[in-house]
Amino acid sequence: MPVSNAADHFDSLRLELRRGCLVMAVLAQLREEQYGYTLKKELSDRGLDIDEGTLYPLLRRLESQGLLVSEWREEEKRTKGFYRLSADGKRVLKELLAEWRSINESVAGIVGRSRSVA
Amino acid sequence: MPVSNAADHFDSLRLELRRGCLVMAVLAQLREEQYGYTLKKELSDRGLDIDEGTLYPLLRRLESQGLLVSEWREEEKRTKGFYRLSADGKRVLKELLAEWRSINESVAGIVGRSRSVA
Repeated sequence: MPVSNAADHFDSLRLELRRGCLVMAVLAQLREEQYGYTLKKELSDRGLDIDEGTLYPLLRRLESQGLLVSEWREEEKRTKGFYRLSADGKRVLKELLAEWRSINESVAGIVGRSRSVA
Repeated sequence: MPVSNAADHFDSLRLELRRGCLVMAVLAQLREEQYGYTLKKELSDRGLDIDEGTLYPLLRRLESQGLLVSEWREEEKRTKGFYRLSADGKRVLKELLAEWRSINESVAGIVGRSRSVA
């Protein structure tokens, strides 16, 4: 079944493509402090859907790496975990964005050139 | 050592960011048949350095997934493996490029918005 095979491979390649960008999007979004729910909603509003089972472990991982800081506070009678970028996180985000722009330029060059030849 | 930690994390996040794009770049480059060495060189000329220990396993993986087809031919008295996109590969590349454009738009929106607020 070559067609369903190709579809399977597309899914895994698509996930691979999204994964790296998602971290960058989360870091960029957390230049302003946010709690999990609003972060998820804003990413989704921007076209990056991420389920809680992926987002919350990612937030904890980025915090354990020192790229995010969190604070638990009561708001509207509920205790919520707020996250924001650390100083290290700001540096890493800046470098990731530079890398992202450079990769995009390379890929755009390759895609453009191949297309004109094909 | 927070600085070197952040540098380590940046390296792994950078690799994660590159990995997904690299597959797409390889597929795009192989719209025209190429053998490993010239493929590596053209990617590198475009700013995407990839070592042979990464490129050749990737080519074999993409071939085993049916996205590439290969052919061994003698050229300049050496037998070389030539690769090019299969029909499935063309479909997958087209979908990946659409996904890539959509992700880039999302990330650009998030980065632009956050920057104007920060």
